[in-house]
Amino acid sequence: MQLHKILAFLAENGVDYDFVGDDSIEINQVSGLDNARADQVSFLTDKKYLDYLQTTQAGLVILNKKMVDATHVAHLLVDNPYYVYALVAQLLNPLKPASNFIHPSAVVHQDAIVGDDVYIGENVVVQQGVKIESGSYLAAGCVIEEFTTLGKQCRIGSNATICHHCSLGDNVIIEAGAVIGGDGFGWANNQGQWFKIPQVGRVIIGNNVSIGNNVTVDRGAIEDTIIEDNCIIDNQVHLAHNVKIGSGSAIAGQAGFAGSTVLGKNCTVAGQVGFAGHIEITDNVHFLAKAGVTHDITESGAYAGFPAIKASDWQKNSVRVRQLDKLAKQVKALQKQIDILSN
Amino acid sequence: MQLHKILAFLAENGVDYDFVGDDSIEINQVSGLDNARADQVSFLTDKKYLDYLQTTQAGLVILNKKMVDATHVAHLLVDNPYYVYALVAQLLNPLKPASNFIHPSAVVHQDAIVGDDVYIGENVVVQQGVKIESGSYLAAGCVIEEFTTLGKQCRIGSNATICHHCSLGDNVIIEAGAVIGGDGFGWANNQGQWFKIPQVGRVIIGNNVSIGNNVTVDRGAIEDTIIEDNCIIDNQVHLAHNVKIGSGSAIAGQAGFAGSTVLGKNCTVAGQVGFAGHIEITDNVHFLAKAGVTHDITESGAYAGFPAIKASDWQKNSVRVRQLDKLAKQVKALQKQIDILSN
Amino acid sequence: MQLHKILAFLAENGVDYDFVGDDSIEINQVSGLDNARADQVSFLTDKKYLDYLQTTQAGLVILNKKMVDATHVAHLLVDNPYYVYALVAQLLNPLKPASNFIHPSAVVHQDAIVGDDVYIGENVVVQQGVKIESGSYLAAGCVIEEFTTLGKQCRIGSNATICHHCSLGDNVIIEAGAVIGGDGFGWANNQGQWFKIPQVGRVIIGNNVSIGNNVTVDRGAIEDTIIEDNCIIDNQVHLAHNVKIGSGSAIAGQAGFAGSTVLGKNCTVAGQVGFAGHIEITDNVHFLAKAGVTHDITESGAYAGFPAIKASDWQKNSVRVRQLDKLAKQVKALQKQIDILSN
Repeated sequence: MQLHKILAFLAENGVDYDFVGDDSIEINQVSGLDNARADQVSFLTDKKYLDYLQTTQAGLVILNKKMVDATHVAHLLVDNPYYVYALVAQLLNPLKPASNFIHPSAVVHQDAIVGDDVYIGENVVVQQGVKIESGSYLAAGCVIEEFTTLGKQCRIGSNATICHHCSLGDNVIIEAGAVIGGDGFGWANNQGQWFKIPQVGRVIIGNNVSIGNNVTVDRGAIEDTIIEDNCIIDNQVHLAHNVKIGSGSAIAGQAGFAGSTVLGKNCTVAGQVGFAGHIEITDNVHFLAKAGVTHDITESGAYAGFPAIKASDWQKNSVRVRQLDKLAKQVKALQKQIDILSN
Repeated sequence: MQLHKILAFLAENGVDYDFVGDDSIEINQVSGLDNARADQVSFLTDKKYLDYLQTTQAGLVILNKKMVDATHVAHLLVDNPYYVYALVAQLLNPLKPASNFIHPSAVVHQDAIVGDDVYIGENVVVQQGVKIESGSYLAAGCVIEEFTTLGKQCRIGSNATICHHCSLGDNVIIEAGAVIGGDGFGWANNQGQWFKIPQVGRVIIGNNVSIGNNVTVDRGAIEDTIIEDNCIIDNQVHLAHNVKIGSGSAIAGQAGFAGSTVLGKNCTVAGQVGFAGHIEITDNVHFLAKAGVTHDITESGAYAGFPAIKASDWQKNSVRVRQLDKLAKQVKALQKQIDILSN
Repeated sequence: MQLHKILAFLAENGVDYDFVGDDSIEINQVSGLDNARADQVSFLTDKKYLDYLQTTQAGLVILNKKMVDATHVAHLLVDNPYYVYALVAQLLNPLKPASNFIHPSAVVHQDAIVGDDVYIGENVVVQQGVKIESGSYLAAGCVIEEFTTLGKQCRIGSNATICHHCSLGDNVIIEAGAVIGGDGFGWANNQGQWFKIPQVGRVIIGNNVSIGNNVTVDRGAIEDTIIEDNCIIDNQVHLAHNVKIGSGSAIAGQAGFAGSTVLGKNCTVAGQVGFAGHIEITDNVHFLAKAGVTHDITESGAYAGFPAIKASDWQKNSVRVRQLDKLAKQVKALQKQIDILSN
């Protein structure tokens, strides 16, 4: 694609940029600074790779506005290089269009409503009462159970399952192998026997949400499990019944949420973090990896450890733990000194 | 459904209750105390929600026997409100009956034996030598591999896989995406190369067992992996080869068991707990979230931490860890005082 | 199978052994020392089971060369009993041969290239441009997306998904439910909105690699995610985009790797370990369970804890943590003694 077309696309998308170089060259793919060829675009956000700017063979580099004269190759100066890189990468790698197609091996119930330009792949199952809006793409082997609704431009990965009576907004991505709307872990114990609590709630997912491979999101026990707009969820995350994820939040791989916990807006959760049930986290809270969150959090900021505390406190104590053997020896020595003084 | 029918059902199930109110009303669904309408039933087990009893619009509330005169609406006084709620919720939300049906897209081997009233959904695969007893329900895309047997009233979720030669009892639920009977992690290393140990054991699951979405339970290496009756297992749990789970135990999300570990009867395991291999846990042991269990446990009770110790001890130390920075400063101050005293 | 045939097979495979006993007996299956019958072979690697050698009913036992005269039954003395057991177990339990077969329910694109003796099971999907070499086995319901290539003798489990444009070497096992080549967690945030970074890299898997049930391995963002030869990966492991796993490494269940992290050769990773992104681990590093690895590791050895430190140091501090309540009380007592001395 000619670079001037890319620049026009950025302008259309409201990107404020300064361009330095020749906009008649071809840019056809993205690449890392170190491996890029002349028809490829790269970016720099981490100063660790600053040296590569001198040696890169990239045709175009996207840089922060402050980095004037930082490289010999054509470059774009912008406020948010990673975002602009995302836009360019999307332009160069358009999604496979969801043309109007139903593979003969797919099983689509006669009472399902399928919009325009919906792609339904091999061995897909679309059950009774399902409604799929225009532009959605269902990859091979996925199952959409009864009365579930998908908005526009959704993309469901291979072998994913969306259980019955769930609701997905527009532009929702469910990656391969994920299970949305399975029964939650609701059981009553009577004299040592477990009795299943029917899970009558649903999963309600907003717009522009992405859910990773082999994730599980349980349907609500009574009310619904809710994922608000603009959330991103990585692989193998588990959300139990009646969890609510506030808009804009990002959850990394293998994190887990017990039932009825509420995460605020614009939170970030690192890998393998665990949340107890029935707790509430305010907006703009950030959890470091492996944290175990056991109580409500009412103040924004970074948290870590188990039970999770402010990250700065955890950091201090964490250093101390690593010095604990030394500290114990110090205490022993103090005792000796005192014993001498006392005698 | 008319309330007196619900009461009759409870009596049939041996529930001892006192009912206060008018039993001619209609109750059609469950709900939370705060959102319930006049034709809905709710319950109270957590005192946190006591105030709702004054304002609830529910038609019926299920309460503990001690809560006489606690609400203005019709109510049931029982010993175990959550259990009675489960019974009523099951009555109001009957499972989809597994009528005698095989979807034309399903692939059922001619040598498979399928009982009465078995439902086999879209794109299900039932291989050679499989035996499925009456009343079982196989959701879309699930695979039952060779020579596996399912008891009565089993329910297999969409895209779940039950590998070859496994055995499920009656009333077993396997949720969507779970893999039962995959090969365990058995490898011998010779001069840096890994050689696969054939996994010749099976997975044997008792009656009334439930296994969550995207769980993995590996088949035994030589002997079998065993899940006894009346166990419940949440999403994304991993049981390695030759694990044995004692009857009545409950395992929460993302917990993991290494090979050959034995969990006793009526244990509970919270989320993200990990068990080392080849250890044995006695009956009635309860593990707090994220515990790392590295040794045999021979005494019932609650355990926490890594390595897991008695929860009460862990609690004390856990508080101390959070004060560790302070403690270290105290020790430093003591040293100064002693230095002054010594000079 | 007659024992002398087994011995001949071992000799062909270069195993140096001493055999004591009668090689005309039949050995038909493997078993544990305690349960073995006369036509079964067992082995001993753990001294815990030494007593069983006196009582075992096994027809053959595989022992370490040093264990001369340790048992009354026929035995093989070898350098690496577990490896020799693996060889014998493989001989007695040959894999189902991947004969030339495509089940009529499978969907194989006309432009896919399928080699000799490839078995394609029920409801398998093989998309456009896929190339599968001879002897590979595709179990029911698995999906091989566009332009992915499989080497010789690969085995893909039921309902597994290999996404587009990935490359698997020879003798690669992908267990049921695994997702190889899903999109990584690449997102740019602009003014609170998440923008997807197209993931244009692939997953490249070497020869003799095994990947467990419900594992997720994300495709690279720009460059590829790489798993070198001879790696073994247990269930529910997550490898993010651009991770590189060095040859010969073994990763246990529920471990997780954030993006771009490099694990060296011949490393072992225990269960539930987590790795931060963009770090590099040298060769021959061993991580204990639940470790959280946050920094580069440049020295071989065993590591544990979070943040991970040398296992020996972690062990010491870990003991101290469990004595922390006692230590804090000691410090308090010291303070009192000093106060007395000072006055």
